[in-house]
Formats: sequence, C-alpha cells, structure tokens
Amino acid sequence: MDKTQPPAVEATRRPNAAAPRAAGQPLCLPPGVSFDKFKDFIKRAGEICEDANVTVISKSEELSKEHYLDPAKEHDMYHIVGKEYFVSSAVIAPRDVPEVQAMVRLCNEFEIPMWPFSIGRNVGYGGAAPRVPGSIGLDLGRHLNKVLKVDVDGAYALVEPGVTYFDLHNYLVENNLHDKLWIDVPDLGGGSVLGNTTERGVGYTPYGDHFMMHCGMEVILPDGTLVRTGMGALPNPNADPSKPPHEQEPNESWQLFNYGFGPYNDGIFTQSSLGIVVKMGIWLMANPGGYQSYLVTFPRDEDLHQAVEIIRPLRLANILQNVPSVRHILMDAAVMGDRAKYTSKTGPLNDEELDAIAAKLNLGRWNFYGAIYGPEPVRAVLWEAVKQAFSAVPGAKFYKPEEMPDNLVLQTRHLTLQGVPTTTELAWVDWLPNGAHLFFSPIAKVTGDDAAAQYKLTRARCEEAGFDFIGTFVVGMREMHHIVCIVFDRKDADSCRRAHWVITTLIDDAAQRGWGEYRTHLALMDQIAQTYNFNDNAQMKLNVAIKNALDPKGILAPGKNGIWPQAYDAKSWAVPQSRLRP
Amino acid sequence: MDKTQPPAVEATRRPNAAAPRAAGQPLCLPPGVSFDKFKDFIKRAGEICEDANVTVISKSEELSKEHYLDPAKEHDMYHIVGKEYFVSSAVIAPRDVPEVQAMVRLCNEFEIPMWPFSIGRNVGYGGAAPRVPGSIGLDLGRHLNKVLKVDVDGAYALVEPGVTYFDLHNYLVENNLHDKLWIDVPDLGGGSVLGNTTERGVGYTPYGDHFMMHCGMEVILPDGTLVRTGMGALPNPNADPSKPPHEQEPNESWQLFNYGFGPYNDGIFTQSSLGIVVKMGIWLMANPGGYQSYLVTFPRDEDLHQAVEIIRPLRLANILQNVPSVRHILMDAAVMGDRAKYTSKTGPLNDEELDAIAAKLNLGRWNFYGAIYGPEPVRAVLWEAVKQAFSAVPGAKFYKPEEMPDNLVLQTRHLTLQGVPTTTELAWVDWLPNGAHLFFSPIAKVTGDDAAAQYKLTRARCEEAGFDFIGTFVVGMREMHHIVCIVFDRKDADSCRRAHWVITTLIDDAAQRGWGEYRTHLALMDQIAQTYNFNDNAQMKLNVAIKNALDPKGILAPGKNGIWPQAYDAKSWAVPQSRLRP
Repeated sequence: MDKTQPPAVEATRRPNAAAPRAAGQPLCLPPGVSFDKFKDFIKRAGEICEDANVTVISKSEELSKEHYLDPAKEHDMYHIVGKEYFVSSAVIAPRDVPEVQAMVRLCNEFEIPMWPFSIGRNVGYGGAAPRVPGSIGLDLGRHLNKVLKVDVDGAYALVEPGVTYFDLHNYLVENNLHDKLWIDVPDLGGGSVLGNTTERGVGYTPYGDHFMMHCGMEVILPDGTLVRTGMGALPNPNADPSKPPHEQEPNESWQLFNYGFGPYNDGIFTQSSLGIVVKMGIWLMANPGGYQSYLVTFPRDEDLHQAVEIIRPLRLANILQNVPSVRHILMDAAVMGDRAKYTSKTGPLNDEELDAIAAKLNLGRWNFYGAIYGPEPVRAVLWEAVKQAFSAVPGAKFYKPEEMPDNLVLQTRHLTLQGVPTTTELAWVDWLPNGAHLFFSPIAKVTGDDAAAQYKLTRARCEEAGFDFIGTFVVGMREMHHIVCIVFDRKDADSCRRAHWVITTLIDDAAQRGWGEYRTHLALMDQIAQTYNFNDNAQMKLNVAIKNALDPKGILAPGKNGIWPQAYDAKSWAVPQSRLRP
Repeated sequence: MDKTQPPAVEATRRPNAAAPRAAGQPLCLPPGVSFDKFKDFIKRAGEICEDANVTVISKSEELSKEHYLDPAKEHDMYHIVGKEYFVSSAVIAPRDVPEVQAMVRLCNEFEIPMWPFSIGRNVGYGGAAPRVPGSIGLDLGRHLNKVLKVDVDGAYALVEPGVTYFDLHNYLVENNLHDKLWIDVPDLGGGSVLGNTTERGVGYTPYGDHFMMHCGMEVILPDGTLVRTGMGALPNPNADPSKPPHEQEPNESWQLFNYGFGPYNDGIFTQSSLGIVVKMGIWLMANPGGYQSYLVTFPRDEDLHQAVEIIRPLRLANILQNVPSVRHILMDAAVMGDRAKYTSKTGPLNDEELDAIAAKLNLGRWNFYGAIYGPEPVRAVLWEAVKQAFSAVPGAKFYKPEEMPDNLVLQTRHLTLQGVPTTTELAWVDWLPNGAHLFFSPIAKVTGDDAAAQYKLTRARCEEAGFDFIGTFVVGMREMHHIVCIVFDRKDADSCRRAHWVITTLIDDAAQRGWGEYRTHLALMDQIAQTYNFNDNAQMKLNVAIKNALDPKGILAPGKNGIWPQAYDAKSWAVPQSRLRP
C-alpha cells in the first residue's frame, strides 16, 4: 500500500430502517444513531447553546404561505417528496461563532451530520431542509444576524448569516447612508445576503453577480478551525491578541481585495459542504448619480428570439449596465393575480388565452425590465441606444414607471433594479391553490436560438405535466440564467408528483442539449451533479477528494450538490423519484 | 488511530549535499535523486516528449537584457541569491496535453518535483525558475501556444499557456476582429495570458482584474487527471467520444459562465501548486465605441495624498472606469533614459534632484495615467467630472497624448490603456547598469494616508539600501496595488544583497502595518506566506491539507507561495538570506 494514500473508509452511513417512534423521539433520527445516543447529543448541544436554542423535531408543522415570512427551519415549505422526507432531527441555533465551532466538533464526536442554513428562505431550492434526513439543522441566522460594519469609503458591508436584504437596506436607510450606497437584491428581499451569495444567487443591478461582488469570508472548517480568507489571513496589527480569533479586529483590506496571497479559496466555500461561512464582506454600489427604470413589451411569443439577439451586444457593450430580465407574460400575470382570476380552464393556457391576458394587462407576451444608471447626459445616450435597438422588434412599446402607475410588476422592478428589497413577487407562487414552486434554472449562451429552444422545450414539458409555463430569462455577464418557475399544489400529491417528474425530465432533456443548471433543489442535486460528468466525473472526484481531506467523517452537509463523503453510501440516499410520465 | 485520517508522512525531502559533478550531470539534481536515477528519468521523459524537447541544465547561461525577449527557461534572469540557486535540473517541453499528463505521472513515479511555467517572463517574481532547486522545469509554452478560439458573439478567447498578449492581440488584428474586441494587457506584452491570470496579474483597462475576467479552465491535477472547471464539466452533446478528453468539443457555456454547479474551484488553481492549467478562457472587452487617454501631472511630492483621495470616490463611482495608475517621477524618467542620463551622483536622488528631473521631462512628481471609454457624449460627461475633481490639486496639469507626442510614457500608456501590448516599459530596468529588478507589491486601502505612508516607508528603505525609489500605485476595484520596483545591478553581489535586504525588510515592515503582498519572487514566498498567519496559520493549514490530499507525494511545485507538501522538510529549503543591514 502507498503510505501517502489514506486507507479506504467503508461507506457505512445509510438511512435508518423504519421503526416505531418512542416518546420524544424525532421524526427522523440521524443515520446510524440510536435514540439514546441522540439524547446524549441533544444534552451536550444544550450545554453548548442553551436548551432554548435546541429544538427536537418530533412533529411536522403545517405549512402555509406565511412561511416565507416565518420559514420552517426543519423542512422544505415547498416539498415535493412528502413534507417529512427532507427533515431535520433537531434544529440548533448557536449564539456566537465559538458555539458554531463547538457544534461542529460535537457533530464530529458523535458522527452526526449537520446542515447549516442562514434564514431558511432558499425557496424553490429546499428552504432550510437538509439533504440527509435526520441531520442537525444549524440555524445560523437566529442569533448571528448583525451588520458588523458598513464602510462608506470602501463601499462595503461585513455581515453575519442572519442579515437579510431588508436588514441591510434598512441599516443604510437608518444610518443615512442610502444616498451614498446601494445594495443589490434578488427578487425577494427576505433572504440572507450571505446565504444567497454562497449559493451563488444573482440580483439585477450592475452588482448582480453576488459572488463576484463579495469580498472576504470567515469560515468554520469541518474540524472546527476558524479561517479568514484573502487579506483576512493577514492579522491587523492593532488586533487585541487577548480576544478570541473571531472577535479580532480584521485586516483593513479584508473587504477590499479578494485574493490575498496563494490559492484563492473562497469559491470552494460556495454551493459547498467544505465550511460554514459565518462572516462575509459584500461590495456596495456607489450611488450612480441617477437612475431610470423602464419596460419594453414585445407583443408576440416569437419575439423572444429577436429580443435576446438585441440584448446580447447591448449587454456586452455595457449599454445594458445591469442584469436585465425578459419575463414571460404569465410571470407578470401571476404576480398580479392567481390563475382563477384569469381563467376557469383546468389545462395549460394556450396562445390565444395568453394573448388575451397580455392584452388585459397591457403587456407583451414577453416583457423586458431594464434600467439605466448615471447622470442625466449619460442616461440620455444610453436610453437612445436602447430604444433604437429594441425598436427593431415590430410592435415593441416602451414605458417608464410613471407611465404605468398601476402596473405592479413594473413598480416592483423599479425598486428591485435599484436594490430596494420587496416581497411583492412572492405572489406568483399563488398562481395555483396551495401554491409551491420549484426552480429549474439552466444556463445557456445569450442567443435567440438558445432562448427559443429552451422556451419551446420547457413550455412543452410543463404543459405535458399539466402546468402552465412561467419563466424568465436573466442575462448575466455573458450567459443567461433561464429561471423556469414550476408552480404546483403542495397539498395535491399528484401535483407534487408531476412537478417532480417535469424537473427530473427537464434536467436530462437539458443535459442532452448541453445546458446545465446553476443551482437546484435538494431532491435534484444528485441528478444534476451527475450531468457534470466530463472525463469520467473528473470534477466530482476532485470535489470528493477535497471533501474527504477536510471532513473525513463527512459531518458537514453530506450530499450537498451531489458530493457524498467517503462515510456515506451515496446510492442508498437516492431520493424517491417520480419519473413516471404524468 | 482514527482510521479516517491518513498516516503521517515523514518529511524526507531535503536539499542534496554538495558533491562533485559527474560529466553530463546537471548543475543541481532533484532532491534525494541520484544521477543514475535522474538519467533513467530523463530517458523516460525523452520517450514521452522526444529527446529534442528535453534539456538537461548542465551549465548556467549568461544572461542579458535580451532575455526578456528570449527568456532563460531554467533560472531567474533577475536573480538575487546567485544565478545558480533557483535552477532546474532539466527543462522539458511537452508537445500536447497527454504529454503533460504523462510527465506528471512520471514525476509521481520518480518522486521528482516539477515546476510548470508558461513563457518564463514572470519578471521580478522569479521568471521560469523553480522554488526547489533541481526541479524539472515544465515548459508549457513552447508547444502549447495556440489561440484555440475567439468567439465574437460571446466576446471571449480560449488560449493555451504559450499564448502571449502580443499573440492574442495579433490574432485579433489578423482576423479583422480588433474593431470589435479588445484585450487587456499588463505593462509588458510578452507574458502569457494564462500565466499572468493564474498568477493574478492585473492590467489597466476596465477588464484589468484578469482573474475576475477569466472564464473556465482545463487543469491537469497532480495525479495526471484532466478536469474542466465550471460549465466545462458538462459535456457538449456533440463531442466526439472517440477523441481523448482534452480534444473533445467543450460545452458552449464553458467560457460564458464561471461557476457551474457545486464548489467553484478555479481560485484554488491560481498562485497554486494544485494543478497545471493547460487551457483557459478569458473575456474580451467589446469595443467601447470611443476612447481617450490622458495624463494628469501633480507637481509636488506631497500631492500623492490628495490625488489618491480624489481617485477613490471617482473609481468607486466608475467615473474612473478602468484600472488607473499614479506613477512616481522616476518610473517615467527611467523609461525615458538610464540613471546616467540624469545624474552622475552615486547615492539616491534627493527631492531637489527629483524636481529637476520632473521639470526637465515636463512631468509632475506624480503622474496619473487614465482613460475614458465610450461614445463622445459619455466621454464628455466623464472627462468633465475627472478634470473638475483633479483640478483641486494646485498646479495639476492635464494632457492628452496628441499634446505630448514626445512623451514616451504617455504614448505607451495610450496603447496599454486600450489593451495594445508593448515592451517599452522594459526600459526602466536599465536605470542601473546590468539592471535587474524585484517587485515589492503590497495591497492597501485606497486612501491618501495609506499611499503617503507606504511611499514614505518604501522610499526610506530603498534609500537606506542605496537605491532610488521607483514605484506606482495601481488602483483596482477597491484597493491599491503599490508596485515598488527595486532596480539593482545583478552582476554586483553587493547590489543583489542590498536588494534582497530591502525587500525582506519591507515585507516585515509592511506586515507590522497590516499591509500584505499580493504576489512575490521565489525567494520571498515563505516569508510572505508566514505573514498571512491569522489564527495560528489557519489558512496555511487549510492549503496544506488540500495540497496533501491532491498531491500526496508533493511533486507539483513544492514550496510555491510557501505551501510545502508533507514529503518536504520546509525548514531545510529556506533561501539564503541577506538580512544584514547594508
């Protein structure tokens, strides 16, 4: 045997066999852990975090729409494989960074998996729920929720996991900084700034690529070690050495320069099970000195192709300065009312019906929401270029928000595109009764052909499953995130099954065309990870090698994004599938 | 023993004891390798790469200035610890990717370290030389030198390690693409696009942060596995499965979207010994529709403070759209002539003498080189804002290149700031006879106080060592790279010793003030790595853990950026120091 190679570890972690529950026993125990051992663990966790911050999950709470505002911490509000499948055994909320470290060490000692989350609003992707049923849900946001710093000269914030976009926005407003600094927000403002960034979410201002705009992390490794990345690894000479590391005054350049010296590690802590990010810097945008949002409506379904062809060169030339979106009529319609408001039909809406809805709402079949940033003379030049370019689409119409005071979507995008958080767009999930949703989010190049082909494919599959197509094309630096919103009725088992079928089918459809997803729900992580299989899964083998080196017992988020540590028998953790055609 | 932990490996790799050289023996054998074993290795390497691509380094070539154009592949043209200290035992140039993989596997078999380089023009940081004397220099650029693709719609290039900035620029010109796409170049155009990016070099256009603007890598891991990162991990459905992996048609989004799915790994392959990057995507800038470079001169030495205070908000607001620089008078003077042209004095120049040089060249004590991008009306708005802001500095003067046809620096910056490569600035290294240089490159926040304090410190130390201060402040997204050019006479042992002293002293000086370097010469890697020691060297321990997992025998670039694999006894590889005060 090569002495430089670690010994093979037997993959022993498998789901527990079904058994009757004892009194006080959680819905699901951690894998391979007896109730007695679990009770010991809970006792020790209470000694670390106080009993009030330790909740054993012995019943499954009824979920409602209001769970966005007060999300369930133990399972997925938008469940597709049963409310009690992706469920934590206990939710524990450490009160400070050393308690996070202590919990990591405790999980190593007990060989119990943990699933950290910030707020639990990872909606459409699994919420706060863990990949491995029975994991400990580590609720970082309940107590670690401070805006630690906003630096005006450097235009950045340093935040803890529990800071939402609302929190950060309010902080700027309350401290009279909002005339100087803007944040970037995703569609919904209730999520965690840190959580969204580490999941590589996007927003809609020029700072829409959140990972690109982050700077500096404080991370707890799977062995409990606290690391500061980039310039944070260089001590501040004025730091008080008597303080614990997480409280030490950081280097002044930590939030100014990402890369530091040597390998740049931040990326491996995104969509990752290699560490728990407990502090993160995020760059803020200097007030651009002027702002104008606008809407361009495209009347015909087939205009999507031409619109995307117009967008590409404008975005590359930075004439479109931000992350714009082209939204399908039903996405806007769903924000402004549920399905019953528009139709009593049960099957998917056809083109005539979609045209009628567009006419009723004074919108196009596709609607482009953009914005221009800068002083008036600069905006005038850019607006002229934008207007001229999109005028090539026959029937395109241009609106500014003041011209459509009753258009809820335009009024909301006007806020979103200047980084003002809202929850208005949560409304589209109510398209169906007991509305829940899954996001199918493939990446493609910015071409009319790709957009049209993705639209055709995804709409056809949605309709095959009995759903309406609801979606938007979001244009980043050089690619489109196509976000298909699969809205289903979470209280209707058949609806859940059809939603599960359509997304599993689309993942394979997309991979066959070279499109891959940038992010996904817990139930689809393995399937998507397996599509990124170039050269005999070389990337996955690399990820697993690093995982096993840093987390030999596999206690941190096993299975996240399809990466299974050596202690886990991956196959036995396959999610119940719904691959039957509806 | 915990069965999940690898066994400890004894650190056995130490420098070889001095011994007489046999005929044909290299100047320096790989550590722990006999001449017989080395000969076996060379024979095997010749079978892989052909003998013509295998060069045993048995004599030390005389170096001259022309080595920038035709760089030495086996040692550092700007050596400070003796020409024969950082030297390869052999230089081997694989002809394709499978030969790189085969060489990696051969080095594992023989337990011989390898040091990959692209072109060998990492000037001021060690050139092509390896950190561990006797390593195999892996010359990637000799054969892997193709522009594999330039995509106009996606505005990117895919390049091999041997593609220089000149090559890429010429490719665009020759293919009539230069009216559409611009590249970003560092000061000298002869370096590798891929090599500069993986060392996290910077340029001066809006695309100046090369790592930020890269997209997608093909990497050979230390075990020989070929990985494509990001979207490259998703196969192109049209790829020909009968081709070897490195020749397979890549996913169409590989160069469009960096992150892919799961952990984003690219950063760990920069300033790194974890993999050999053999293909890389780089985003190109769309022709901005207009360009104007300019110079602002600041008459007094103390104007640096005010200039930097003016720059910060302009840069944050993107009124300064690119990476501008504020250059010390001697940096410009040195491009336009050697020291003897200006003075016969031996000691460092004093303020009066610097004023006289500035007057002679019609420049300021500090000179700001900027540019504005966009159509004329946009440029007019930005220029007004820039001019108004810098006019606050008493005596500031504004020049456009057409107003100073004889100013070689302004004429050169006019090219550099629009991404046209040159070698003009190579001239400043001839400030002294037999000129060589080291870069001291600390990062700081963009404030007048930091700039003034760094200038004061670094100028004082340079003068203490008998050198003139030559330097520039380069302003990135939110930080300054202060690049101090320590010019010394490489044929004068005392001059080398003083250069070594001043940089080792400055590294400690800087760390005591919280400033850390972003990149460094081979001889300083350990010292700088040790300054990034927050929380008991937590970051280094993380780096070493990943290193040992991916490269258990430590064959790939041991010691790079201070990271020593488990098989190496780090202390025994300390570089001979010159810490005595001059």
